[in-house]
Amino acid sequence: MEKQEDLIDFLENKQNYIPHLSIDCVVFGFHNNELKVLLLKIKNIDTWVLPGGFVGMSEGIDQAAFRILKERTGLENIYLEQFYTFGQENRSKENTLGNLLGIDQYEAYKKSWISKRFVSIGYYALVDFSKVNPTVDDLTEKYAWFELKQLPCLAFDHKDIIEKALATLRLNLDRKLVGFNLLPETFTMPELQSLYETILDVSLRRNNFQRKILNMDILERIEKLYTGAANKAPYLYKFKPASQPKFDE
Amino acid sequence: MEKQEDLIDFLENKQNYIPHLSIDCVVFGFHNNELKVLLLKIKNIDTWVLPGGFVGMSEGIDQAAFRILKERTGLENIYLEQFYTFGQENRSKENTLGNLLGIDQYEAYKKSWISKRFVSIGYYALVDFSKVNPTVDDLTEKYAWFELKQLPCLAFDHKDIIEKALATLRLNLDRKLVGFNLLPETFTMPELQSLYETILDVSLRRNNFQRKILNMDILERIEKLYTGAANKAPYLYKFKPASQPKFDE
Repeated sequence: MEKQEDLIDFLENKQNYIPHLSIDCVVFGFHNNELKVLLLKIKNIDTWVLPGGFVGMSEGIDQAAFRILKERTGLENIYLEQFYTFGQENRSKENTLGNLLGIDQYEAYKKSWISKRFVSIGYYALVDFSKVNPTVDDLTEKYAWFELKQLPCLAFDHKDIIEKALATLRLNLDRKLVGFNLLPETFTMPELQSLYETILDVSLRRNNFQRKILNMDILERIEKLYTGAANKAPYLYKFKPASQPKFDE
Repeated sequence: MEKQEDLIDFLENKQNYIPHLSIDCVVFGFHNNELKVLLLKIKNIDTWVLPGGFVGMSEGIDQAAFRILKERTGLENIYLEQFYTFGQENRSKENTLGNLLGIDQYEAYKKSWISKRFVSIGYYALVDFSKVNPTVDDLTEKYAWFELKQLPCLAFDHKDIIEKALATLRLNLDRKLVGFNLLPETFTMPELQSLYETILDVSLRRNNFQRKILNMDILERIEKLYTGAANKAPYLYKFKPASQPKFDE
């Protein structure tokens, strides 16, 4: 999108998308007690964005979120969960794409589909960042995993979107970890505690953590195999299957 | 909307709304150990809907939700919380408004704004249904509070929307009750337990409930006033102020 003609081509291609509606993906990465977020740098300007895009006229929003994440970062087979829809009137008024790209004075831009107000549906994921390999797309110069306390200059309201995604992730973390499949099938209590500590950004006392998590009744303890001398090995746990509430049965 | 001309007028008035985007409100009502949901009956047909509407071009989505609830039911000053956005491609394909109203063969309808696919943002509220007085609007014949186990014939995917709202309400009920302001400022433990039992649709053991809720550290116990003989009165509690997580301080 370095030239106006490229931009116009880009806009022409959007006719089959629902106007005024976008999707933004917050991909959290966890590894070795670090929690990061995946961001893309827009070409030629010092501004970063979440991987985002639009919803096809005949495409479900979940389906659109998976496609967008794949097209923009190369990531696929990742469990994305919808968490919130951002629709304040002025959420990108001060800091539009046209303004960022320095094209907001062009008539073609002012009339364009993309210069309008967008309501954005937020999705988030939690992955092991050592196990995924993002790529860049045509709009993007590079990608990077940022620590949440050291975010770069972000476009639009993307900082608010990340903050809301983090609050959602922290709420009911026990249920989330099952869905996001971040731990191996079986894990030790210290492995689980370290994940909680990193995501919640707190230190937890070992005994308290163990008692609370066992009281939640979400873990199943795997019996140790009898190997003669292996009774010093820590217990292994796995998550119990989750259940969904229903009211009309 | 009994005549085609009325429908066309109705559609003409929608030009200032964001196309393809709607809002649906799930208003739960609690009173005397009953949990119900507010539904509207469409004129002349045996189908009920949630109070819903559209988002103005220059209107935030939260603002739109409050306006819609007020226009369609007369209810105002009610705390509405966004909970999920419904955007499967075919969520109202089988059961469109035109089909329900018997006007889907008219060219004016087929070309209209309202015959298109809609992505709907869900908001929910929890009120004391003995304390609110809904009214009906031009599209609606009557309103009623329905028990969740005895829902009438619902349009579109409104049953799914109610089910998702209920699941959301049940999750972290302790935090929700503060926001929805359903209990008086101070309340007894049995009053709180009865609210939980009704919303979760379960029976809870008194001692277990009390221990769990006190462990959550969300309640503050009010000291009894010394009145000489009043020590048989139950303790009164109030909710502690809620705190929001932040990551960049």
